[in-house]
Amino acid sequence: MNRHSLVTASRDRLTCLQRTLREAGAAAYLADSPVETAYLSQFGGADSWLLVPARGKATLITDFRYAEDAAADCPHLRIRLRTQSLVKELAHLGRRLDGPIAFNPDTVTVALRRTLVRLLGAGGLAPLAGAVTRMRLHKDPTEVQAIERALRVAEAAWGDFLGRIRLGMTEIQLAGELEYALRQHGADGPAFDTICAVGPNASRPHARPGCRRLTAESPLLVDFGASLAGYRCDLTRMVLSARIRPEVSRAYEAVLAAQEAAILAAGPGVPVAHVDRAARQVLIERGYRKTFGHGTGHGLGREVHEGPSLSARMPENVVLEPGMIVTIEPGHYVPRRFGIRIEDDVLITGKGRRVLSRLPKRLDQVVLSLQR
Amino acid sequence: MNRHSLVTASRDRLTCLQRTLREAGAAAYLADSPVETAYLSQFGGADSWLLVPARGKATLITDFRYAEDAAADCPHLRIRLRTQSLVKELAHLGRRLDGPIAFNPDTVTVALRRTLVRLLGAGGLAPLAGAVTRMRLHKDPTEVQAIERALRVAEAAWGDFLGRIRLGMTEIQLAGELEYALRQHGADGPAFDTICAVGPNASRPHARPGCRRLTAESPLLVDFGASLAGYRCDLTRMVLSARIRPEVSRAYEAVLAAQEAAILAAGPGVPVAHVDRAARQVLIERGYRKTFGHGTGHGLGREVHEGPSLSARMPENVVLEPGMIVTIEPGHYVPRRFGIRIEDDVLITGKGRRVLSRLPKRLDQVVLSLQR
Repeated sequence: MNRHSLVTASRDRLTCLQRTLREAGAAAYLADSPVETAYLSQFGGADSWLLVPARGKATLITDFRYAEDAAADCPHLRIRLRTQSLVKELAHLGRRLDGPIAFNPDTVTVALRRTLVRLLGAGGLAPLAGAVTRMRLHKDPTEVQAIERALRVAEAAWGDFLGRIRLGMTEIQLAGELEYALRQHGADGPAFDTICAVGPNASRPHARPGCRRLTAESPLLVDFGASLAGYRCDLTRMVLSARIRPEVSRAYEAVLAAQEAAILAAGPGVPVAHVDRAARQVLIERGYRKTFGHGTGHGLGREVHEGPSLSARMPENVVLEPGMIVTIEPGHYVPRRFGIRIEDDVLITGKGRRVLSRLPKRLDQVVLSLQR
Repeated sequence: MNRHSLVTASRDRLTCLQRTLREAGAAAYLADSPVETAYLSQFGGADSWLLVPARGKATLITDFRYAEDAAADCPHLRIRLRTQSLVKELAHLGRRLDGPIAFNPDTVTVALRRTLVRLLGAGGLAPLAGAVTRMRLHKDPTEVQAIERALRVAEAAWGDFLGRIRLGMTEIQLAGELEYALRQHGADGPAFDTICAVGPNASRPHARPGCRRLTAESPLLVDFGASLAGYRCDLTRMVLSARIRPEVSRAYEAVLAAQEAAILAAGPGVPVAHVDRAARQVLIERGYRKTFGHGTGHGLGREVHEGPSLSARMPENVVLEPGMIVTIEPGHYVPRRFGIRIEDDVLITGKGRRVLSRLPKRLDQVVLSLQR
């Protein structure tokens, strides 16, 4: 991604936010979370806030440690290297505004709000829910490209990983091999804590890798992703051996069918709950009831869990829209025995959907003959 | 760490918190952040809250995905697998209490507070700042042991890493090698985004690894740590080659002297600002002014940045106390040329201090002859 298109994307987002601010009668917006700051400014550092006035240039409030990064990332912004706390610097800038500073009530804490009210007065602040969160639901072309780049890295790493898996490795070693491959292929790191769960451990959907060793009888569940230039991907694949029990391969086929049904169900205007039901229905038809206890997927972007949530609990008026990128990841879990999950990342387009991830998933493609 | 001593530590923390709750006239405490939930309960999963009544058993509110983990981690708690949102489950439990639920205003967001007030009434909630944060300042023996274990893993990984460094490797590859070694030695992962900064990149104290390659002329700064069983360590070491410029080795000696002075200055009852001044004074005496733009260190534990902050800005009544574990990490940064930092982790004891980390740092020990 070249610097120019990133700066252009940032400008577009700021313009869009400024329109919202003027409609809401706010003088400025405070981005206090690292993700919102990065989304709006393209600045990649920590401990920094962005103040976006309703008109004119935004100011990135950062410190000495990030002086060089901020200048490189944000040629289009004012950079303020703070000499006092973030709150005091913000209050200093805020006093010059003639109107309230809007803030995100989902990121500003009760303590921070209180301090800001003390410094700016109660009229100096106004909650504005979802202003940036709503923008982030729809990925612009630079974001789609960033997530696709993260996917290509994750997929290349997966290839290396398959060549390095040996029977007898622990879950921790397996996670280490995969994360090493992610780095070697250029990831900034894993997109989240990698899950490598062997046999019965896979029945815990969010298992932490431990000391259980891979055997020829135990299915391996790997939930992983690459983080790259601020964006994340999220994939789950099973590794099965030819000696797997029939109940496992039968469940695998059912989960795969459920996942494919959910992918086909996804498209613009489709209620998110409908996608969830499409997966669940296939599992129920195959006799698997109450073994799939989580939602079918979630939005994906700078964070590994963003909106929308593909959950049966969502009202029918929450629908998929073009530009959304969601995971689709039904599962089947049998406590103390095994767990199956298959996950891909899907872009909703104007006409339907495009599956962005490319790892093979047919049963015969995930059965490997593993060596010691 | 055996399960029994972890459960005992959790019980002690809950008892201590319950005393605070009764003194404050609160009926219960809501831990809504993953770190506070884990600290109080020993539960290691995400998306879960802990409700601690002023008397009696605490309840962990979690979901299907963590059922097995919660039962294993928290035999001493009530486990509630939620069938609706965390907020609604909490409100359900909260309505049975006869008094307000205390919450941490530094973790509860404005939006969450508003939802809880709607469900519980304004009298159903009361901010209680620092109740758990203050407890976390002083590490109990299980915590000191956990951080020491993380250090032993990080140090073993550093040894492997030194054997694997080759001239020509990129910063990203170097970070990958180190993180792989961390995993191989049993870490759950890096404690934070590993910094591997070559030559001029090291002048940015929080540089992200990029495509710059290691050469014999360029000093390498590595800031890294292991995360293990919920605890983190934090170390910085330089790797220098025999062909390093004299200005670099002179600066290295100055930073090392500053770091040792700060370590010697640290002890129970010592103002944190005094430790910072001890480091800064040495650098100034050696002619380095305004090249050390960050604080001298920070507390360390479940988070990589906890209290206390060893900053010159802290008032004199903020002092070090036995049980605190802090990093000591002065630096010297010359924009577009190079950067030096040396960092160790130090436990404050009843009589003085104990340096918990053990990596060599004398100039002759960090000069390596690197190969292609």
